[in-house]
Amino acid sequence: MINIEKANTLVEALPYIKRHNGKTMVVKYGGSAMKNKGIKDSVIEDLLLMSYVGINIVLVHGGGPEITQMLEKLNIKTSFVEGLRYTDEETMEIVQMVLAGKINKSLVAKINTFGGKAIGLCGVDNNMIKCSPYKNFKLGYVGEIEEVNSEIIEDSLKAGYISVIATIGVGENGETYNVNGDIAASEIAKKLKADKLILLTDVPGILIQADDDNTLIPELHEKDVEELMDNGIITGGMIPKINGCIDALNSGVNRIHILDGRIPHSIITELFTDSGIGTLICKENEGSDKYKGVVDRIENLKNETH
Amino acid sequence: MINIEKANTLVEALPYIKRHNGKTMVVKYGGSAMKNKGIKDSVIEDLLLMSYVGINIVLVHGGGPEITQMLEKLNIKTSFVEGLRYTDEETMEIVQMVLAGKINKSLVAKINTFGGKAIGLCGVDNNMIKCSPYKNFKLGYVGEIEEVNSEIIEDSLKAGYISVIATIGVGENGETYNVNGDIAASEIAKKLKADKLILLTDVPGILIQADDDNTLIPELHEKDVEELMDNGIITGGMIPKINGCIDALNSGVNRIHILDGRIPHSIITELFTDSGIGTLICKENEGSDKYKGVVDRIENLKNETH
Amino acid sequence: MINIEKANTLVEALPYIKRHNGKTMVVKYGGSAMKNKGIKDSVIEDLLLMSYVGINIVLVHGGGPEITQMLEKLNIKTSFVEGLRYTDEETMEIVQMVLAGKINKSLVAKINTFGGKAIGLCGVDNNMIKCSPYKNFKLGYVGEIEEVNSEIIEDSLKAGYISVIATIGVGENGETYNVNGDIAASEIAKKLKADKLILLTDVPGILIQADDDNTLIPELHEKDVEELMDNGIITGGMIPKINGCIDALNSGVNRIHILDGRIPHSIITELFTDSGIGTLICKENEGSDKYKGVVDRIENLKNETH
Amino acid sequence: MINIEKANTLVEALPYIKRHNGKTMVVKYGGSAMKNKGIKDSVIEDLLLMSYVGINIVLVHGGGPEITQMLEKLNIKTSFVEGLRYTDEETMEIVQMVLAGKINKSLVAKINTFGGKAIGLCGVDNNMIKCSPYKNFKLGYVGEIEEVNSEIIEDSLKAGYISVIATIGVGENGETYNVNGDIAASEIAKKLKADKLILLTDVPGILIQADDDNTLIPELHEKDVEELMDNGIITGGMIPKINGCIDALNSGVNRIHILDGRIPHSIITELFTDSGIGTLICKENEGSDKYKGVVDRIENLKNETH
Amino acid sequence: MINIEKANTLVEALPYIKRHNGKTMVVKYGGSAMKNKGIKDSVIEDLLLMSYVGINIVLVHGGGPEITQMLEKLNIKTSFVEGLRYTDEETMEIVQMVLAGKINKSLVAKINTFGGKAIGLCGVDNNMIKCSPYKNFKLGYVGEIEEVNSEIIEDSLKAGYISVIATIGVGENGETYNVNGDIAASEIAKKLKADKLILLTDVPGILIQADDDNTLIPELHEKDVEELMDNGIITGGMIPKINGCIDALNSGVNRIHILDGRIPHSIITELFTDSGIGTLICKENEGSDKYKGVVDRIENLKNETH
Amino acid sequence: MINIEKANTLVEALPYIKRHNGKTMVVKYGGSAMKNKGIKDSVIEDLLLMSYVGINIVLVHGGGPEITQMLEKLNIKTSFVEGLRYTDEETMEIVQMVLAGKINKSLVAKINTFGGKAIGLCGVDNNMIKCSPYKNFKLGYVGEIEEVNSEIIEDSLKAGYISVIATIGVGENGETYNVNGDIAASEIAKKLKADKLILLTDVPGILIQADDDNTLIPELHEKDVEELMDNGIITGGMIPKINGCIDALNSGVNRIHILDGRIPHSIITELFTDSGIGTLICKENEGSDKYKGVVDRIENLKNETH
Repeated sequence: MINIEKANTLVEALPYIKRHNGKTMVVKYGGSAMKNKGIKDSVIEDLLLMSYVGINIVLVHGGGPEITQMLEKLNIKTSFVEGLRYTDEETMEIVQMVLAGKINKSLVAKINTFGGKAIGLCGVDNNMIKCSPYKNFKLGYVGEIEEVNSEIIEDSLKAGYISVIATIGVGENGETYNVNGDIAASEIAKKLKADKLILLTDVPGILIQADDDNTLIPELHEKDVEELMDNGIITGGMIPKINGCIDALNSGVNRIHILDGRIPHSIITELFTDSGIGTLICKENEGSDKYKGVVDRIENLKNETH
Repeated sequence: MINIEKANTLVEALPYIKRHNGKTMVVKYGGSAMKNKGIKDSVIEDLLLMSYVGINIVLVHGGGPEITQMLEKLNIKTSFVEGLRYTDEETMEIVQMVLAGKINKSLVAKINTFGGKAIGLCGVDNNMIKCSPYKNFKLGYVGEIEEVNSEIIEDSLKAGYISVIATIGVGENGETYNVNGDIAASEIAKKLKADKLILLTDVPGILIQADDDNTLIPELHEKDVEELMDNGIITGGMIPKINGCIDALNSGVNRIHILDGRIPHSIITELFTDSGIGTLICKENEGSDKYKGVVDRIENLKNETH
Repeated sequence: MINIEKANTLVEALPYIKRHNGKTMVVKYGGSAMKNKGIKDSVIEDLLLMSYVGINIVLVHGGGPEITQMLEKLNIKTSFVEGLRYTDEETMEIVQMVLAGKINKSLVAKINTFGGKAIGLCGVDNNMIKCSPYKNFKLGYVGEIEEVNSEIIEDSLKAGYISVIATIGVGENGETYNVNGDIAASEIAKKLKADKLILLTDVPGILIQADDDNTLIPELHEKDVEELMDNGIITGGMIPKINGCIDALNSGVNRIHILDGRIPHSIITELFTDSGIGTLICKENEGSDKYKGVVDRIENLKNETH
Repeated sequence: MINIEKANTLVEALPYIKRHNGKTMVVKYGGSAMKNKGIKDSVIEDLLLMSYVGINIVLVHGGGPEITQMLEKLNIKTSFVEGLRYTDEETMEIVQMVLAGKINKSLVAKINTFGGKAIGLCGVDNNMIKCSPYKNFKLGYVGEIEEVNSEIIEDSLKAGYISVIATIGVGENGETYNVNGDIAASEIAKKLKADKLILLTDVPGILIQADDDNTLIPELHEKDVEELMDNGIITGGMIPKINGCIDALNSGVNRIHILDGRIPHSIITELFTDSGIGTLICKENEGSDKYKGVVDRIENLKNETH
Repeated sequence: MINIEKANTLVEALPYIKRHNGKTMVVKYGGSAMKNKGIKDSVIEDLLLMSYVGINIVLVHGGGPEITQMLEKLNIKTSFVEGLRYTDEETMEIVQMVLAGKINKSLVAKINTFGGKAIGLCGVDNNMIKCSPYKNFKLGYVGEIEEVNSEIIEDSLKAGYISVIATIGVGENGETYNVNGDIAASEIAKKLKADKLILLTDVPGILIQADDDNTLIPELHEKDVEELMDNGIITGGMIPKINGCIDALNSGVNRIHILDGRIPHSIITELFTDSGIGTLICKENEGSDKYKGVVDRIENLKNETH
Repeated sequence: MINIEKANTLVEALPYIKRHNGKTMVVKYGGSAMKNKGIKDSVIEDLLLMSYVGINIVLVHGGGPEITQMLEKLNIKTSFVEGLRYTDEETMEIVQMVLAGKINKSLVAKINTFGGKAIGLCGVDNNMIKCSPYKNFKLGYVGEIEEVNSEIIEDSLKAGYISVIATIGVGENGETYNVNGDIAASEIAKKLKADKLILLTDVPGILIQADDDNTLIPELHEKDVEELMDNGIITGGMIPKINGCIDALNSGVNRIHILDGRIPHSIITELFTDSGIGTLICKENEGSDKYKGVVDRIENLKNETH
């Protein structure tokens, strides 16, 4: 009995499995989803399932809290300028060690232990993420991405590996840089012309009212973005994030998902079930029934704001 | 909520998906599973899911009832000798038309409509199933398989097709033969050194008492077969069937499943969930927890019979 | 002595063998050439020779008379509208069985018995010939070709098979359609950008006077077609046929041959000897000496009609 | 009419074309077949036909008369020891120039002009024919083949070229050697495990009585050779020649043909028609009807000699 | 003038370049060669040259001193048992961060900056170095290598990367282990059946008298090892090291070089010039003139000790 | 000590090796470099080194003096028109024998003896250099290149061979032609889009004053050529040569080197050391430090001439 239901669930996933087969997806992994062990396990399981049904996976991760923790142990002081960590040479060494040495390889070990086939890389390998110093402020070894050389990622995917990438960049003289994870994931997705960029965050998606989960925007189209910004619905820190997404859309990425990484199996739920969760950003209305009711609601919301 | 459960079900399937990935399986399709539309759909869905998670599928089918129906319409009389249809030239023409022209292509159309990628073949294509006339009795164009030439099946699987095969054989002079479906499936599985041979039947599996489903033998090992035959547990028509399975095991097929084709999604349930259904025939006790209780029970049953 | 002559004949074929090596040719097979056993054998031998000298062959066949015969046996009445068989569901089932199950596989068996390597397919396989219901009249399951998906043909040719194709189409919901053989052959040739489309017919070619074989047009150029139609030389049923040929020429097929299928080895004679037979339809005068005298004659004929 | 006969001839060649398709054959070219322009053309045409029906061809040639002619022009005296030309350094230079520079490249030019795709090589290229000085006599730069390195021939065949090879060998220090053509052809055939070694000679084949063409031995089996030598049927210069053939048979060459190179199209006649010409040397009676009558006759002849 | 000398030097390297072309070499990098910047640069240059002349390079590195330094900064106490660092969980985290995050990626950055194409891996990637806890003593997370899975190294070499490998192992549950660098390099060389294992050390090679560089053993053969151990010439810590080398020889590694990493360009000097430096360990006397004199001397030394 | 210097030299070559890796270079070989044995050896060694560091090499050679010598031995008179040898049929035969038979195969033998992997070809092979008779004068079999068919060269390079090419062309009817070596090399370089065309000559390069080696032009840019011709610095026979080089530059060849073939290892010195020798012809100033001083000097020279 219960088995039939399980079988039915597997069968229901068929059209989604078919749709995603052979596609490349870049997953930005961070926040709560990295801290809570249960959630971490659920993310790894999601990646494995994606991998088994033929999706090429690039997992891009940061690791701010663990960096802070290690800096504290070493009594290295850290300061932030507009949300970016000032990174002197001593700090950069710790950033590199924690991201590329600890978190990256631990993720790889976890994926492999769960039955996957992962490789751990960072922007230094084959000069993958070429950087120069951040331009807006003097932030030491905070890097601005000049170019993504995706050859080593493509080699890895072709050989069947899940590519796990620590967001360390490399400069002209081999010096390393601290790179923003969202931007790195977006630039990699653009270079790979990935089908999807999936951002695991600590929010339910884009909210019309930041404190009300019921105002989630389920599907956001490029053409509506400007209006929503003008109307003050997308504000503050969301503005550059959304602009980054629009940039990715215009560079060949088909869809961007902002998912709530705090919910177990949020990726699988979005990719393989009838329920859409989080916010989907895409070029125009794809008429998906998943989002039907909610899309109407946002239309109303937009009307109300006029 | 419900979605989380669905996601969990997908995640539970992970170890099974991993185990079956890249394997070749031969499915013998016949009986009720071919007649009931709902069940037919469920079998096709099962095949698609298998295909999407990287299993190479060979679907071998017969079609006795439809042949009989067409013969009746044409007022061609038909007779059976020890369960085998006497097949004169006129009958053979109908057998070929119904199997290779109607059932085969209809199955292909159905798989493709459901989103798969299928090709319909029969033993005539590239001289795949070479036959001579049946030796035990004079049965006209009933064929005895001399050799399976699996090249065209391998070409098809390699090009990504689900191979749907009508059980028509071909003789030295191009004459065609009516071939038993179970034997054809078994010979093809042997030649391909398939990982699994799955027989969809109209019974729950091998039963100790034919009329009592509770006496299902969940796992049968080669070494026990002789004893069960001596003890009269395996009798009659089951004897050649089981002998065929043992032959396949000894020719490189890893496991044979006798499944109840009347249950929806029986293949998926067996392959991708924790529940084993039907009878598994394998070389020796694989210690699978699935079958634990029942294996003990058969030990008891065997003891009781002494 | 006689052997030297034979050797000389083989040597004379050299420039033709060279010219056709590696090319793809679509042969439409039907009419008398399918009924007379001797002629049938000669066609198969022609195909084998073509295959051995490196030509990729797609054999498209219909089978009207055998369909009619089977319908009669089953007491199913059949009617024709403007030369097209009205095809209800019951009739379609028979059409599919006869074409895809009987004729197709029998041709495959014959080719293989003669030493070839053939595969039998129909438009259902991998959704090769996608159809909708015929638009001009209500004809039931008579199909109008929407699209040819040539992937499975290309896979077969690449793997070295002679592709034998029954003209059954498939609709969106997996329902099958009865498709006109000439049109199917032409659409397949167009999609494959075949070098040649060869139509085996029951006439010597295009005749200026239908009842006088001496008025055969040996070579017909695109630019002359309109004039010949205006002058009433090409009339009636020939008009759509020739228009189809011109369409194929404009879609990348280099040459179309209308050959007399009643003559043994007509394909070989046309392809590998100095004698041209039948009508060649091509873009412009290729200055072939084969047709020299006759081309002049048609010039005269055209002049006379002015 | 005549065309039908031509078509019939092409069709009769089918089983032979099929049999030879994809095979590798080494043709030793020399004697009259190289001197008479008409015959030369006929040999080239034979090679082209072989090439077009998928045979991989290695053409090994010598060129004694042209060497003699050039030596005479240069007033270089030449002497022979047991049929082998004494080759001092000055002579060797001429041998190399005439064989590798003149004859080889002229043959290549001729094949290409006739529509083929040929490459001209000699034993120097990639150290293909490694030699040491002839051991039995002091003959200067007459070479004894130590090893054939077939890599460059295989590369050429794979890239689709007809390999034309001048029989020049190379020593350890890059010095070149004059190599016997029959032996070179045989050693190359052995290394390539060629299907056939074809020797074009100035005799009709192996004759029981050297001056009576009617005593031609059409088929010679390994087991009969010793007896024929003992009985004095195979004598003199034939002994090493036949021993070389037997050696080739034992090294994996399937059949050796000794053909009369003076007859136009002798290769095509042997390979593609029902008539066998010349002597076939093979392991045992292949029961070919071609040779039936004559095989009986040789049985008689052997009996008579007892 | 001077340029001619340079050109001559390049030419003299030709036979060595030829010999090493296409070979795989594992270089164990550690000690002084890692600390001194000038030497470090010279090692990287050596690797690049090897890479450009077609050698596949696997660079295995440790990093003890930097680990110690970081542990000190963090006030984590460290202790050694028979030369092996006791490694608790806290220490292991630091070992992993320093080796896989800092040293590994810095080496990769340096190679890439110098114009190479490097990838940084550790034993965690694709479960490359599978470990269990060290067996002889309780040492926490000191690992004993159970198996090397060389797939990811082979994938990297095939794709043209210099593989830089940090000696971190991974256990069954994804826990990481501290692995001895010499042993890791040796096991990897064995699994890859590398042509050479090159150990960069802080000594001139194997010395008969540890304090006298003039007693360097230039070439050591397997058969002499036991005698040298019996005679007390190889003693103490050298015994397991040499045993490891002999083990590698017996597992398919052709030659092992113990080189003085303190000398600039020691690898190039050994591989591409007439001078042999350090100790070569191989199966038997290869008669290399490089070592001629010294080999005699060791014969004498052995004699003297008797 | 001395070894360190050698190692340093190898290391200094690194950036050059890197730059040239995987490139295709056409070397025109003639003049003194072909006559002097020591120089000849040095050229071969240069080619081998180029080959081992991954350069694809095409060696184009003539052989005027040896042709003249052979013609003299045969008392065949020879005459020159504007530097071109009048070539009647008898002469052409000798040209072909000497170039394709003697010099070509001797070069191949030498390269192979030195450890290379060479193949000897001429313009006849696969119709590589298609010619018509020279147009400006009646010169018999002096050929004008109509087309280079580079397929056979590309096949050879891909299979790893050094391609040694004798400058014999072939006409429509298979007749052979005597082709100018510089032009042949240039046309081949153009067709291959070679990175470099290297002309080994008997002069130090392009001299401002033909008798003063100190007036060597080290680097010549396209834009300066016209001016230098107008100023009478480039005159006479240099004009067509330089025009040929400019033509090659405009057809995709990156750089042309005119080197002094009388200096040992001139190619290696130019390609792999800091010293530039000879004249480099390229599109514009590449700012190479090699030529710095000299470029200034030519600027002065040009100024002086104003």
